[in-house]
Amino acid sequence: MTERAYLLGIDIGGTNLRVALADTRGNILARTSSATTNVRDSHLVVANIRDCTDRLLQDVGIARDAIAYIGAGAPGVTNAETGVVIATSYLMGWRDVPLKSMLEEALGVSAAVDNDVNLAALGESFFGAASGTPDFVFLAVGTGVGAGIILKGQLFQGTAWTAGEIGYMLVPGVDEKPAEPGQPGPLESVAGGEGLRLRWLSLWDQAQTTLPENLTATQIFDAAVTGDALANSLLDRAAHTLACAIFNMTLILNTPLFILGGSVGLHSALRDRIQNVVNTHARRLHPRVILSSLGSDAQLMGAIRLAQLMAQCE
Amino acid sequence: MTERAYLLGIDIGGTNLRVALADTRGNILARTSSATTNVRDSHLVVANIRDCTDRLLQDVGIARDAIAYIGAGAPGVTNAETGVVIATSYLMGWRDVPLKSMLEEALGVSAAVDNDVNLAALGESFFGAASGTPDFVFLAVGTGVGAGIILKGQLFQGTAWTAGEIGYMLVPGVDEKPAEPGQPGPLESVAGGEGLRLRWLSLWDQAQTTLPENLTATQIFDAAVTGDALANSLLDRAAHTLACAIFNMTLILNTPLFILGGSVGLHSALRDRIQNVVNTHARRLHPRVILSSLGSDAQLMGAIRLAQLMAQCE
Repeated sequence: MTERAYLLGIDIGGTNLRVALADTRGNILARTSSATTNVRDSHLVVANIRDCTDRLLQDVGIARDAIAYIGAGAPGVTNAETGVVIATSYLMGWRDVPLKSMLEEALGVSAAVDNDVNLAALGESFFGAASGTPDFVFLAVGTGVGAGIILKGQLFQGTAWTAGEIGYMLVPGVDEKPAEPGQPGPLESVAGGEGLRLRWLSLWDQAQTTLPENLTATQIFDAAVTGDALANSLLDRAAHTLACAIFNMTLILNTPLFILGGSVGLHSALRDRIQNVVNTHARRLHPRVILSSLGSDAQLMGAIRLAQLMAQCE
Repeated sequence: MTERAYLLGIDIGGTNLRVALADTRGNILARTSSATTNVRDSHLVVANIRDCTDRLLQDVGIARDAIAYIGAGAPGVTNAETGVVIATSYLMGWRDVPLKSMLEEALGVSAAVDNDVNLAALGESFFGAASGTPDFVFLAVGTGVGAGIILKGQLFQGTAWTAGEIGYMLVPGVDEKPAEPGQPGPLESVAGGEGLRLRWLSLWDQAQTTLPENLTATQIFDAAVTGDALANSLLDRAAHTLACAIFNMTLILNTPLFILGGSVGLHSALRDRIQNVVNTHARRLHPRVILSSLGSDAQLMGAIRLAQLMAQCE
């Protein structure tokens, strides 16, 4: 019998999935990814994961039964106890998908699953920027905005597994009208990638800008730094809104550290402006706002950490 | 030697202090209170507590050494581990007061201390409206606004003991200008007793109201219910602001229950309007907003519970 000396980390996103093979200390030995755009069926996603895994194993010459545990992150509200993904956004449209048991059946290995942003927080907690900090919040600013909360060194998921769903937070300057199902919430309309893209589009023709009509949030932030006035106003508003959200979380949770991640959140100009606004409000409390050190791998490293924790519970 | 069969609960407020003698099951056997208005010196407050206690004990014919444990709540940020009150509002002006050791020295009994709003949450958790609910938030709306947070059946106090200091929360409609030290924060300016009193005063002369210039927040709410338009607008704004704060806390903490307490928070018209606003925002999550069942005794019952927990740790 082969010794089960490896861990598998899986990050399922709205546009692609990543699979990594790691040793028990969390060092990635091999990795691969695959597009998931327009793949909504959870069975197809799991079959894709199995194929990616087998390809990885073949590349490194390791048998499937050498994997001890699987950790996987899903982009939605996830019951980490039962391993069921309760709901994802309209992009995937999952409802009550028993991901843990589907992975276990497809790969023949014990699995644990959680929300991807929670896993990013777990990744930063052990392998990244929050190592040694027992209380902090990971802010994922991508298409939308969400938070993973670590309290006393442990993930805090809430009564119904929705803790940290801050894309709907009500802060000064947001549109208070309740969001329609599937639409960005009040906070992510201002500070998330999709909200920023749409706002640029809607303001573009009236604005004095030489930039194109279609820009991503990151391109807008780049343009802000090089002096475009419209781009600058959007960056300022996003930073102000996120700073209010961070300040509110500081008041409620008293966490001293906030880590910015996600494709949009990793922009250093955003971080700098957020920290400036936070400092004007948080006079007694001084939360630090820093960039994720794991970058786009935060979720994947969190998935590996989840598998590692299963190994430690043996 | 006497059996130490009694507990002492102490609630230190900005205007008065309460002392209660209870049996080990938490039943109050005797109680007393004393004014603390203009008494800022912590030594005088502790001497007052000792006098109250001795009077109580004399009344029921029990010796001081029959008290097993003391639980005490202070109106400020409190290090529950060391028993030091780090800071109270300008009304008392305490800074780094070692309340636990002062009480132990004055009364010769082991003591534990915590923030009064945290203790109110603890009281509701065991003796009151949240009995059997492991995750909830107690909102104290009095002169200011604060929250006590119970997660997984335990008080959550935060890294620097300031978790739940929501009087400064930034929600739509508040004045974002950072508050001056000692002044009400943005949220409590709109929803706290002092903020409401000041706002009534500033709007009174331009308003078509037959009511007097000086009203308490509770009197304003009463007038709102009986049809005064200005009072109604203040109640609406307070309810809307608190509903936003509750909605934000639901997003972050995913707690299904919020308990309203404090002299202003116990008004049922406030609760009803808050619940209505919360319902329009929280479509997926449905937090319940209910009135404290312990009322003005929530803090005191929490202090008794704190003493009870010490007894259980024996």
